[in-house]
Amino acid sequence: MSDTALIAALQKITTATLTTVLLKKGIRRSWMKGPQRLGGGMLAPGQARIAGRAFTLRFVPMREDLATPASWSSPRSTRGAIEEMPAGCIAVIDAMGIADAGVFGDILAQRMAVRNVAGLVTDGVMRDVAGVLETGLPVWCQGAAAPASVAGLTFVGWQEPIGCGGCAVFPDDLIVADGDGAVVIPAALAEEVAKLGAEQEELEAWIMDEVKAGRALPGLYPPNAETLARYAARKKP
Amino acid sequence: MSDTALIAALQKITTATLTTVLLKKGIRRSWMKGPQRLGGGMLAPGQARIAGRAFTLRFVPMREDLATPASWSSPRSTRGAIEEMPAGCIAVIDAMGIADAGVFGDILAQRMAVRNVAGLVTDGVMRDVAGVLETGLPVWCQGAAAPASVAGLTFVGWQEPIGCGGCAVFPDDLIVADGDGAVVIPAALAEEVAKLGAEQEELEAWIMDEVKAGRALPGLYPPNAETLARYAARKKP
Amino acid sequence: MSDTALIAALQKITTATLTTVLLKKGIRRSWMKGPQRLGGGMLAPGQARIAGRAFTLRFVPMREDLATPASWSSPRSTRGAIEEMPAGCIAVIDAMGIADAGVFGDILAQRMAVRNVAGLVTDGVMRDVAGVLETGLPVWCQGAAAPASVAGLTFVGWQEPIGCGGCAVFPDDLIVADGDGAVVIPAALAEEVAKLGAEQEELEAWIMDEVKAGRALPGLYPPNAETLARYAARKKP
Amino acid sequence: MSDTALIAALQKITTATLTTVLLKKGIRRSWMKGPQRLGGGMLAPGQARIAGRAFTLRFVPMREDLATPASWSSPRSTRGAIEEMPAGCIAVIDAMGIADAGVFGDILAQRMAVRNVAGLVTDGVMRDVAGVLETGLPVWCQGAAAPASVAGLTFVGWQEPIGCGGCAVFPDDLIVADGDGAVVIPAALAEEVAKLGAEQEELEAWIMDEVKAGRALPGLYPPNAETLARYAARKKP
Amino acid sequence: MSDTALIAALQKITTATLTTVLLKKGIRRSWMKGPQRLGGGMLAPGQARIAGRAFTLRFVPMREDLATPASWSSPRSTRGAIEEMPAGCIAVIDAMGIADAGVFGDILAQRMAVRNVAGLVTDGVMRDVAGVLETGLPVWCQGAAAPASVAGLTFVGWQEPIGCGGCAVFPDDLIVADGDGAVVIPAALAEEVAKLGAEQEELEAWIMDEVKAGRALPGLYPPNAETLARYAARKKP
Amino acid sequence: MSDTALIAALQKITTATLTTVLLKKGIRRSWMKGPQRLGGGMLAPGQARIAGRAFTLRFVPMREDLATPASWSSPRSTRGAIEEMPAGCIAVIDAMGIADAGVFGDILAQRMAVRNVAGLVTDGVMRDVAGVLETGLPVWCQGAAAPASVAGLTFVGWQEPIGCGGCAVFPDDLIVADGDGAVVIPAALAEEVAKLGAEQEELEAWIMDEVKAGRALPGLYPPNAETLARYAARKKP
Repeated sequence: MSDTALIAALQKITTATLTTVLLKKGIRRSWMKGPQRLGGGMLAPGQARIAGRAFTLRFVPMREDLATPASWSSPRSTRGAIEEMPAGCIAVIDAMGIADAGVFGDILAQRMAVRNVAGLVTDGVMRDVAGVLETGLPVWCQGAAAPASVAGLTFVGWQEPIGCGGCAVFPDDLIVADGDGAVVIPAALAEEVAKLGAEQEELEAWIMDEVKAGRALPGLYPPNAETLARYAARKKP
Repeated sequence: MSDTALIAALQKITTATLTTVLLKKGIRRSWMKGPQRLGGGMLAPGQARIAGRAFTLRFVPMREDLATPASWSSPRSTRGAIEEMPAGCIAVIDAMGIADAGVFGDILAQRMAVRNVAGLVTDGVMRDVAGVLETGLPVWCQGAAAPASVAGLTFVGWQEPIGCGGCAVFPDDLIVADGDGAVVIPAALAEEVAKLGAEQEELEAWIMDEVKAGRALPGLYPPNAETLARYAARKKP
Repeated sequence: MSDTALIAALQKITTATLTTVLLKKGIRRSWMKGPQRLGGGMLAPGQARIAGRAFTLRFVPMREDLATPASWSSPRSTRGAIEEMPAGCIAVIDAMGIADAGVFGDILAQRMAVRNVAGLVTDGVMRDVAGVLETGLPVWCQGAAAPASVAGLTFVGWQEPIGCGGCAVFPDDLIVADGDGAVVIPAALAEEVAKLGAEQEELEAWIMDEVKAGRALPGLYPPNAETLARYAARKKP
Repeated sequence: MSDTALIAALQKITTATLTTVLLKKGIRRSWMKGPQRLGGGMLAPGQARIAGRAFTLRFVPMREDLATPASWSSPRSTRGAIEEMPAGCIAVIDAMGIADAGVFGDILAQRMAVRNVAGLVTDGVMRDVAGVLETGLPVWCQGAAAPASVAGLTFVGWQEPIGCGGCAVFPDDLIVADGDGAVVIPAALAEEVAKLGAEQEELEAWIMDEVKAGRALPGLYPPNAETLARYAARKKP
Repeated sequence: MSDTALIAALQKITTATLTTVLLKKGIRRSWMKGPQRLGGGMLAPGQARIAGRAFTLRFVPMREDLATPASWSSPRSTRGAIEEMPAGCIAVIDAMGIADAGVFGDILAQRMAVRNVAGLVTDGVMRDVAGVLETGLPVWCQGAAAPASVAGLTFVGWQEPIGCGGCAVFPDDLIVADGDGAVVIPAALAEEVAKLGAEQEELEAWIMDEVKAGRALPGLYPPNAETLARYAARKKP
Repeated sequence: MSDTALIAALQKITTATLTTVLLKKGIRRSWMKGPQRLGGGMLAPGQARIAGRAFTLRFVPMREDLATPASWSSPRSTRGAIEEMPAGCIAVIDAMGIADAGVFGDILAQRMAVRNVAGLVTDGVMRDVAGVLETGLPVWCQGAAAPASVAGLTFVGWQEPIGCGGCAVFPDDLIVADGDGAVVIPAALAEEVAKLGAEQEELEAWIMDEVKAGRALPGLYPPNAETLARYAARKKP
């Protein structure tokens, strides 16, 4: 499957379904604790879903001799990292869950939008959120804080293994994010997960119709043999 | 008072007033920490209020030999519990405050809506929140997470005493939930609370009008004897 | 600079910029952890910004012999404090971060609105949030809880030094709050911060235009000497 | 294997080894977060290890109409539960991690010691700790608090499934506790775990001797084929 | 009762008993969460108990323009406060639970010991703990941290109402601290609490003897009428 | 100054003094939150102090496809890292504060002791603590947990920049740890800090003698000009 096809397939699957498929493959740590869709309300319906390869960024805690506005001019800076991001990637930022210093603000978000980055996921927070939302860049984070990253964080590099929201994320893992949060899919499992996820979505849509029609849950969800037979029969032309 | 009349009376009283009335009766632990209205923003105005008898569900932490998709087919399952819920009840789910595994998703919420369950209150989180909101089931919870309940929770039974958000909840206690969160009223106190709450609401509405008219707070709220005399006089035809 | 002019100037500067200016002056603790705009969603765009002098209120934890409805009639009460608030001030309430007892409800908020208080900032929560939002008083807080303040808090005084969201706030410090939260500016630094902040906002607006036009970040933000020269040239008529 | 033999075997295996064996069997949630040995310092060496069948007790949060000293006289009380505990069992108490109300004090601990209960494990705290230590009952808990259980907890029953420190514990599961904390072993796996744990302990003791003799870790721990061959050879007479 | 007699009486009563007596008088918030005996291990047996009048100290969060070593020379400093402490008082320090800046170190503790202060209780931490322990001053705190108070705290005054570990403490309230932590007794209730506490201790000592003699708990603890009659009879000469 | 001399000098200075010296140089984040001396009680007096260059190790969260016992045999393993540690270094382990999986156990600690590593500092926990203490390796950590690192952590590399207890630590920074916890000193500042720290220790020892002799604190600590003159005079022969 081409990368384009893989990402398109994943984008049609809910993160809820993806975590269930990954659980069946033995992966329990796939949902990142913390990131929620910025600007759509914590729990609003109908939010867009994004999918893409992870481009990782790593921070360590602030130290006054290092985390300064001057450090922004270093080649090993968040600015440098943004210029390396390929179109369509999702930036995943390890902020160690720190909620009182915004990892990025509106100017950096605007540059990412210009470069066609597909989204930003972090276990930290954003700043200039009004401006960030105007850029149109889809963002999943823990919330907002006014202080700049240097108030609490020191940037140390990109495309390294990171932790984000309690999950390990490796460069080029697959990321999907929607109204239930953000999920990481190990790169080696992504094609199989996309296939199984699509099948699961189709089955659950049919089950939902059955529930709306008044059918009780036991035997229907999860489906027993009789239900699966009905499901198989329905699919025939 | 019939149960229908009691629930209708409670539904007209804010949870803020209910906690004050309960405090005067010696009950300090009545507001559940965690549950907030799903989909209406954390703090949005004009949210509907629900009232009903508690139907309790209990989880313990996940253990891999127990918390499996296969367990969903057991008669002692969340599916079995939903089929036991009477119309008009409010499901109260003890999730031990765990925020990284959704207790229920859209299919279970849809079945509850079909069965005319009045609402769902939990100190945990939901999954498939976009779909849950489409079902129309009123939900108070801590937020959203993609993983299924089996990723973190094992269901052990229903209509047992539970803890939810730091409160004890017994089967058939009265539950009221609105924009300030969710409150439990001990069944034995419910009629008296409903009566005192209605009186308090009427008094506070009159005080609010006085404040809007420019009157200062000291002596007005809480009302001193002169204020109460004015209030009594106003009520006469 | 008159107080009116100072406050008008500060109201035009984002809290994000203010924290950066304060950081350059050596003040790292200026953003309060916890307070977010009530009713606008945690992270919604386009929220109004408020600015004003701090009027501080202080609570200690509840003790049953002290934190009673009767205490509301004492001259040393929250009611008494509200009557002392000057028009245009911002009430800053030290609730020690307690999230299960609302500091104020709709009646007190209404009185503050009538008295032309510019806003309310607290590291605690509000109650009667639907009613509070109807009063139009701008509020930054941690969320909502139904119980009254006496359920968890004892009021002890006003215009004392307080802590709020991890920041020291002294009476008559300057407060600015917007979609990124609330910031305290030491009174002695306020004029200089207002001047530097305005300059920074103008520079960042120009940089944002450059980014929208497709320019890369390194050398632009933060600006190097060449960029600053271009910026200076642009400003000439 | 007789229960006596099983418990004797488990008592010789460290909790560290038991968690590794359980992990290889697919059980990741076996160590309880919170309980540490009372009175031996948080991390002191040479602490005794206990093993036994779990006798579970369950609390929900306090509610003023239920959690009273009078409730101690009810047959469904902690006193009643203690009289049901068989000699050699380990009481496992679900206190929901609450750290400001002691589940048991010295008098109840003394009665348990008289009844030859093997130990007490809780994710809550104890009270009267000086007196508890004098009883000689081995206790694993989170620490000490002066208030009685009724200040924060309502007892609801025994020998039910519970959560303790993030683990599910079912009546008659096996419990082992030592200087690294407390572990639960599902009853159905206990014999196999005891056998594999004993083998692992023997291997690790030999590896430790090798390390003391100066051998480097790669290839030794975990052992590669050559190391395992040396280990097998050594065991021969 | 003289203050000396009152304090001597309170010193003989465990904090566990004191919280129970206070609970019966309607005071649920009397035990401070956080303070534990420094240097005796978190839970060690046989620790001394202290009692005395509270001398309160209050901190707010650090702000760089205020919390400096220079501020230590101000008359409104911790040094000034120590010189005001009467012999026999217990310093109770509101550190807002901050655990990464030590409120006091060895030099200040030594001066307090020289001035015959009876003890120090804080919801924060100490620094120079090895040196503090050498001074012999009894200390209840959350632990140790190397940074000085100015790294996180600004001192603002003494003998004001404070919060400490979730409790309100007013100047001259009574404080008792032992192996179960520290308790505050409202000044107005202290004599009655001392009397009831002494009676409770005597009863519990007798019950403990009964338990050691093999008697079962139901009916004994709490005592029913028959047990109380036996207890009354025993007390007769 | 030779490295040996520098480390010897630092070992004589308390971490409390070091944080004060660093604060005066503008470094506020130098004390790691979490690490306390293992086995000596959380706060015990007279604990040894260690000093040395940091050798950093980095973990990210566990993922089931990576964090397996098999991974221990990889060259990029904790075993490989230990073999790279120079004698006299202090291993500083970024465990992201995770407290339910032990970073190292007794066998790895034994190998480090054999290799003359000076100590181990982590914001995580240890396992096999009884065995670890027998190895004699000085350890600062958050406590004990039975599960192996693979239960919660994936090792990703060594001698990279890390975070530990809220501090940035770079390879070859200086580390000092004692009864107040562990401190990191930026390598470039270490010589100056050692010099200033030694002077501060001498001054404070003299002040302590003055306090023991009964002198009041104001003017003495911090010393005013008159006190400093007395101190200078005393030093003359």
